[in-house]
Amino acid sequence: MSDEYDLIVLGGGPVGENVADRAVQGGLTAVIVESELVGGECSYWACMPSKALLRPIQALRAAQHVKGVSGGTLSLADVLARRDSFTSHWKDDGQVDWLNGAGIDLVRGHGRLTGEREVTVGGRVLRARQAVAISTGTDATIPGIPGLADAKPWTSREATSADHVPESLAIIGGGVVAAEMATAYAGLGASVTLIARSGLLGGLEPFAGERVAEGLRGMGVDVRLNTATCAVRREGDHVVVTVGDGEITASEVLVATGRTPRSGDIGLETVGLEPGRYIEVDDTLRVPGSDWLYAVGDVNGRVLLTHQGKYQARAAGDVIAARSRGEVVADQPWGRHVATADHAAVPQVVFSEPEVASVGVTADAARAAGHEIEVIDYDLGWVAGSSLHADGYQGQARMIVDTEREVLLGVTFVGADVAELLQAATIAVTGEVPISRLWHAVPAYPTMNEVWLRLLEAYGRQSA
Amino acid sequence: MSDEYDLIVLGGGPVGENVADRAVQGGLTAVIVESELVGGECSYWACMPSKALLRPIQALRAAQHVKGVSGGTLSLADVLARRDSFTSHWKDDGQVDWLNGAGIDLVRGHGRLTGEREVTVGGRVLRARQAVAISTGTDATIPGIPGLADAKPWTSREATSADHVPESLAIIGGGVVAAEMATAYAGLGASVTLIARSGLLGGLEPFAGERVAEGLRGMGVDVRLNTATCAVRREGDHVVVTVGDGEITASEVLVATGRTPRSGDIGLETVGLEPGRYIEVDDTLRVPGSDWLYAVGDVNGRVLLTHQGKYQARAAGDVIAARSRGEVVADQPWGRHVATADHAAVPQVVFSEPEVASVGVTADAARAAGHEIEVIDYDLGWVAGSSLHADGYQGQARMIVDTEREVLLGVTFVGADVAELLQAATIAVTGEVPISRLWHAVPAYPTMNEVWLRLLEAYGRQSA
Repeated sequence: MSDEYDLIVLGGGPVGENVADRAVQGGLTAVIVESELVGGECSYWACMPSKALLRPIQALRAAQHVKGVSGGTLSLADVLARRDSFTSHWKDDGQVDWLNGAGIDLVRGHGRLTGEREVTVGGRVLRARQAVAISTGTDATIPGIPGLADAKPWTSREATSADHVPESLAIIGGGVVAAEMATAYAGLGASVTLIARSGLLGGLEPFAGERVAEGLRGMGVDVRLNTATCAVRREGDHVVVTVGDGEITASEVLVATGRTPRSGDIGLETVGLEPGRYIEVDDTLRVPGSDWLYAVGDVNGRVLLTHQGKYQARAAGDVIAARSRGEVVADQPWGRHVATADHAAVPQVVFSEPEVASVGVTADAARAAGHEIEVIDYDLGWVAGSSLHADGYQGQARMIVDTEREVLLGVTFVGADVAELLQAATIAVTGEVPISRLWHAVPAYPTMNEVWLRLLEAYGRQSA
Repeated sequence: MSDEYDLIVLGGGPVGENVADRAVQGGLTAVIVESELVGGECSYWACMPSKALLRPIQALRAAQHVKGVSGGTLSLADVLARRDSFTSHWKDDGQVDWLNGAGIDLVRGHGRLTGEREVTVGGRVLRARQAVAISTGTDATIPGIPGLADAKPWTSREATSADHVPESLAIIGGGVVAAEMATAYAGLGASVTLIARSGLLGGLEPFAGERVAEGLRGMGVDVRLNTATCAVRREGDHVVVTVGDGEITASEVLVATGRTPRSGDIGLETVGLEPGRYIEVDDTLRVPGSDWLYAVGDVNGRVLLTHQGKYQARAAGDVIAARSRGEVVADQPWGRHVATADHAAVPQVVFSEPEVASVGVTADAARAAGHEIEVIDYDLGWVAGSSLHADGYQGQARMIVDTEREVLLGVTFVGADVAELLQAATIAVTGEVPISRLWHAVPAYPTMNEVWLRLLEAYGRQSA
């Protein structure tokens, strides 16, 4: 194994894998440096295990919400075993095989930049002929709540990889991890208390967080909004969380209050960057002022979502290859070599009860950005396809119309099983498909997607 | 109630309702003539009851395909009761209320054209100042198989409205009704034999019919392809169907071999048209050579799907209003007043086991139309979201790329729960969104929609 490569990738999660893969497909040599499991947070402690925990709950609930279906139970051992198989039992052999097949080298160990185009792993110095890409991701933030760090709190890692369901779980936080893990653990039988400093799912349309709070309460979760956590202490086999108006006792406490970039100990100071911060990049994912350093995925702080990181990775891997060959770089908006969608067309699904699926900007964000907009809401439960899908279906759809350009700026769906509705909205927003043309994109009857017709009807039709 | 209206609509199904509604919203007066239930075939004997029968089966099967969920049963009485509620127990009070609220008059009875702009219902003569729209739909075809008509076969009406599940059911036909009713009755416990003259789901991508045949066999259906039905006779409490190599005995026989336009007894001959045929129309849904006669929905034979009929109805209602007011007609392709999508962007879902969702043209049809295409296939079961959705998920996705224009001409998904994936494809095809832009429409991870990324990767990325 050589110590010189065209591309060195620091961090072998899905993002790093994709940067390397695209670069290799573009004719470069590449090595990934990884200190933990190849496959990263998503494969072992985030997307995959969380959805594996949630899917049996969701599937059973979906069936039980249809009159004519009765019975059905969850087997906890089977749910956990299924989750284990989706994480390959926390072994990365399959991912390493994939790297081998893709022609990407792997160096295990903690890598640090030690100068321009140079990464040192233990005693070994790797040199990059063309580029170094940092894709080290993020860690769970442990906020400075008195006693919290000593109370051995769960983070998303422990919550997604637990080998048992605690009798009770206190969750500090109101974001995606908090909402999803409250859904999972309540669904698996734990007594869950969710403590959020403000509301749920900030940054999304307000009705999303409101409906999820309602949904979680319907599952028996004690949802405490606008509640500050003052202190946490562990007492024997349980933890005590002190909030404004009293104490909450639980078997475990999960802290889900945000993420911190893993950029503190990777030698950023050797190349003039400040450690511990998100690494700023341009739309080609390159660090401004550098011609060789890239930061891709969560660690650049643009969007903390696996699929969006992989999207950036495709652009980054391709542009590194193109620049290496002296080819034209397609860095115009929506070009091949830029992550334009990061700015205004990011899709996100929250797999909570109910689910939330959104893309683009919210009404508030659109107004703040100076757009002339109209906000169209429709009750998803009024759609024939929804009432067929589940008795008493409850949900909401919202689209944000740019009334000057007559295109969609954002769409949000909230309700059971809306995750797969999202891609239509993502294509409409990203493709800037005019409203007049969307009228011709007929939703099949009777599906939940008929909400598209209802939203258009609510907006009204112009002569065109 | 006056006998003169701007618009007379013959047939009060969803299509007729929408033509009238759009015209009234455009300032016209309108009356609907209906001889059966207001709400039409779809509400009482097609889309709604068939999906109501299928959804509990589908929901339970989805749950049972996830390790961790066990048990669960169907209650036949509850399934039928739920179906009854979706058909409003075959009463149209709710639909009539809707007509009243929308400002549309209703005349009950069998209407016939009796001259230009004139419809006679019983002894009453209605006159149209502007237009007559025919939206009488279709009936099940009873083919000339010896003995069939005398054997009191079920059609889609009896199959969707049955008050019991027969012990066994023979289905003659291989189209959508046959596939869906085989799924429903096998799922509800009947012993089902499906007899198709050729393959299943002709007109769709061949793999769709093949996978549905396989899925039905997995449910225990005896699927006999390339099998002609020679004769049918009823013997006491059962029917005997004679096929090439023997006889099939069943409690009931369902004939699902196509549809016949309900245009035989509506006075077409009084306006120079031939009764009993599909009524030819232009893209504004108007009969060529006439300035007042429209045919909308199934009866024009363009596309036999409720949602597409309603799409035509919006164009027709709007153009009738526009022409009445002497306004500009937007009849350019994709204009407000034409049903352009009928030609190459029709979405369709078959709610069978597995489901089929398709839009646009098949590979064969695209080639026959002279397009330069590339056919991209991807195994839907390889997508992380699919394997999370159901253990051992089996499915296939295909996209047809117009390699000259770099847009999609058609997309087909086959697999469990693909119905809601379709709208994304419909927007991509209808919106003519370039492939280079689709790369920026990031599918949320981990959803089944990630198949979009896989299809694009399989196609390859151009520099742009």
